[in-house]
Amino acid sequence: MRELEQRILTDGRVLPGEVLKVDGFLNHQVDPDLMFTIGSEFARLFREAGITKILTVESSGIAPAVMAGLQLHVPVVFARKHKSVTLIDDLYTAEVYSYTKKTSNHISISKKFLSADDKVLLVDDFLANGQAVQGLFEICDQAQAEIAGVGIVIEKIFQSGHQLVADRGVRLESLAQITSFDGDRVHFASEATD
Amino acid sequence: MRELEQRILTDGRVLPGEVLKVDGFLNHQVDPDLMFTIGSEFARLFREAGITKILTVESSGIAPAVMAGLQLHVPVVFARKHKSVTLIDDLYTAEVYSYTKKTSNHISISKKFLSADDKVLLVDDFLANGQAVQGLFEICDQAQAEIAGVGIVIEKIFQSGHQLVADRGVRLESLAQITSFDGDRVHFASEATD
Repeated sequence: MRELEQRILTDGRVLPGEVLKVDGFLNHQVDPDLMFTIGSEFARLFREAGITKILTVESSGIAPAVMAGLQLHVPVVFARKHKSVTLIDDLYTAEVYSYTKKTSNHISISKKFLSADDKVLLVDDFLANGQAVQGLFEICDQAQAEIAGVGIVIEKIFQSGHQLVADRGVRLESLAQITSFDGDRVHFASEATD
Repeated sequence: MRELEQRILTDGRVLPGEVLKVDGFLNHQVDPDLMFTIGSEFARLFREAGITKILTVESSGIAPAVMAGLQLHVPVVFARKHKSVTLIDDLYTAEVYSYTKKTSNHISISKKFLSADDKVLLVDDFLANGQAVQGLFEICDQAQAEIAGVGIVIEKIFQSGHQLVADRGVRLESLAQITSFDGDRVHFASEATD
């Protein structure tokens, strides 16, 4: 998505360790108009997929997920993060390791809001090592829900998350695909086709 | 807002301790179309207030805040919650006590995203004891930002948050005002004027 790539180039910052900071428009300060455009694009891509529900993880996934839900007219469920989880009968849970924070969290979704009748689109702000998406896969498996696709705002395709989704055989749509960082320059997969 | 009150009556559940559970459409599963309507109403109410930025707190405030931001065409900043905060120069922080969880959290906003030039609308899903709003007031004061109003999805007007906002002299707009619970029945302020 050209508009998103442009925004990454103008407002993103590359930090040491191949970290892209986009807290000016995506995951701390949020640009609602850009989120609407992102939601439109997810809706366009998955319009024919028969999605019944969108799943994401708090907090940064919520804005793009809700904008996609608005345009597909389906509910959005955001998984809650917990330090630890006391196993409660009415929750689906999974453990998620964060490479940036070097800690494990649990994520959970109430069983009320996901079932074997659902055809799910997973939405998140970033795909890097794919730990959050892996956690959502596990939760969908527990619910026996069908996973129709994964919609990512910004993907670092040189990290392991891309392969993790491919191995699962799930359709992956990333609106900005970063192939590499070169100092503070960001390279996109789309450059190859320009 | 009649549509919201109806939704609370059909999908909300009253739990012991005057807790209203609305995880089916507001703070776990989210109804994006209802959020859009809520955002429209905030935008209508504050259209002439010269808002430059919307502030909320992760995670449940994000969906209504982003929908209001979409329709006022202003950025939304969500404060992050932390267990503890190491005082960092580039953050505004405040301590927020949660009566439901009986723990204190810190909330923070990057100094980059709030300044004395801002005229701020605070948006949150609930107003009960007003601790989150109080934390956002403190953060706005640190930034010397002007607070133009508070927009709340569901207010329990019999708890102390209402007075806290009134004492500050800030305009408060709540889309559903609950006056009391009567067993599992919910009473709204609007009933008096029906």
